Amino acid sequence: MTRRLSVAFTPAGIPGDDPLAGTVVVIDVLRATSTVTTALAAGAARVLPVATPEAARERARSLDPAITLLCGERGGRPLAGFDLGNSPAEYTPGAVRGRTLVFTSTNGTRAMLRAASAERVILASFLNAAAVVRDLEAGSGPVHLLASGQDGRVALEDLLAAGLLVARLEATGDFRPDDAARIARTVREAAGADLAAALGRTDHGRELADLGFGADLEACARTDVLDLVPVLRRGEIVAGDQAPQASR
Amino acid sequence: MTRRLSVAFTPAGIPGDDPLAGTVVVIDVLRATSTVTTALAAGAARVLPVATPEAARERARSLDPAITLLCGERGGRPLAGFDLGNSPAEYTPGAVRGRTLVFTSTNGTRAMLRAASAERVILASFLNAAAVVRDLEAGSGPVHLLASGQDGRVALEDLLAAGLLVARLEATGDFRPDDAARIARTVREAAGADLAAALGRTDHGRELADLGFGADLEACARTDVLDLVPVLRRGEIVAGDQAPQASR
Repeated sequence: MTRRLSVAFTPAGIPGDDPLAGTVVVIDVLRATSTVTTALAAGAARVLPVATPEAARERARSLDPAITLLCGERGGRPLAGFDLGNSPAEYTPGAVRGRTLVFTSTNGTRAMLRAASAERVILASFLNAAAVVRDLEAGSGPVHLLASGQDGRVALEDLLAAGLLVARLEATGDFRPDDAARIARTVREAAGADLAAALGRTDHGRELADLGFGADLEACARTDVLDLVPVLRRGEIVAGDQAPQASR
Repeated sequence: MTRRLSVAFTPAGIPGDDPLAGTVVVIDVLRATSTVTTALAAGAARVLPVATPEAARERARSLDPAITLLCGERGGRPLAGFDLGNSPAEYTPGAVRGRTLVFTSTNGTRAMLRAASAERVILASFLNAAAVVRDLEAGSGPVHLLASGQDGRVALEDLLAAGLLVARLEATGDFRPDDAARIARTVREAAGADLAAALGRTDHGRELADLGFGADLEACARTDVLDLVPVLRRGEIVAGDQAPQASR
C-alpha cells in the first residue's frame, strides 16, 4: 500500500478549513523555513508564527520580554522595532539560544498558518532535507508538500526543494506521486547541480540579491546540513523528536 | 520593453474580480479547450461556457432549440440528456456546423469563467498552439497563461501546453517569463517528443484512458493542426479574427 505524495504549489492548494489527514510539509526556501530551522538548530526554544507584524507585536506583549525576540520581514526587508530579520545568518546561538521567537514573514508564515489544521505539520528546506525524508519515511498516511510561493504565485525555489524531497521519497518505493509531485521532481532534475546559482535565477532570488541578501542564497542552498525537523503544533514550532535512526 | 509572461497553475492564480490587464490564455488540454477549438473549426457558430449542467439546461431553454446543442461532461463522463460529451471526435461538421453549443465541463469552463474579467480571453490547446502564438505576438500587454488544472490541483498536461507556448513566445525575445513560466517550459522540455505518451502518464490522462477515452489523448496531442484562436467575449466563445499573417 503506497502512500499518496502530492505537492501544492501555493497555500491555496491546501484546504484551509477541514482537518487534513497526513503530514503537511511547509517549504519556504527563501527564507522562512530555512531561517526557522536555523534558529531551532541554534538553540531557540520555540518559534511562534504569526500572520502580520502587528500581530507579532501584539503577541510579544503577552510574553516575557527578557526571553522574547520579534523576528521577520515584509517584502524581504527587516521591520522597524524588530530584533531580527529573516536572514538565517542572524540566527546565531548567541542571538537566539533559549529564546522565544515571534516570527512573521510575507509568505512562509501564511503557508504555515494555512496548514495548521493538518494532522501533522513540519517545516522543510534544503538545510534539513535528509532529516525530513527520514521523518516522513518513518511516518504513515499521505504527504502533502506545500510550496509557499510568493504572493499567491508559485516560487521556483520552493518547487526545487519539493522536487528534491519527491525524488528521495519516490526512491523508497513507498510513495505514489501526483502530477504536481512529478512536475516538482522534473524541475529539480533540470536545475542542475549548482543549486545556489539556480536560486539566483528565481524571481525571489533576484529580488533578494537586489536587496543585498545575495549571501542568503548560498546559505539557503546548503543541503542536508541540519539534522532537525521543525514541528508546528498548537501554534508553536519546536524541534521535533530526533528523526528515527536505522540503528534504533 | 518586454512583455510580462506568467503562468497560473490553477484558476485560483487568476484574480477573479478585478479586471486583469492583458490577455488570459485558458488551457484545458484534456479536454475542454481542445474540444471547443475543434468545434469552432468544424463550423460551430458559438460556444456558451456555463458553470454547471443545471445552468446549461437553463441557458438552453432560452435559445432556439433547432440550432442549440447541450454539450459537456462531469468527471469525464457524458451527461444525461446532453447532445454531445467532451470528446473532440464528437464535434464533426455534421454535428455542429452553424449551431450554438451550450458547454460545461468539470474544470475548463470554470477556468474560462474565472478569466472572464480580463481585458482579453482566448483559448489554447496543442491543436492551435501556433495560431495562439501568432495572435499573442501581434498583441500587446502582459500575457497570463491559465492552466485549468483539475479540481484546484495543477494538471501536468496543461503545464505541458503552457510550456510549449512559453518556449515559443520566449524565442521571439519580446517576453519576460516569471518563475511559473520557466517551470512550465522546463516541464515541457523534459517530457520528450512523444506527447501522446506524455499525456497518457498524467493523472487525468490515466483517468480518461480508464473511462475508455484513450483515443482522445492522441487527438489532443496533435500540435499546430487548427489555425484558429477561440475568443471569449461577453459570455460567448467565437472563432477570433484570423491570426495576422506576415504578408498582410
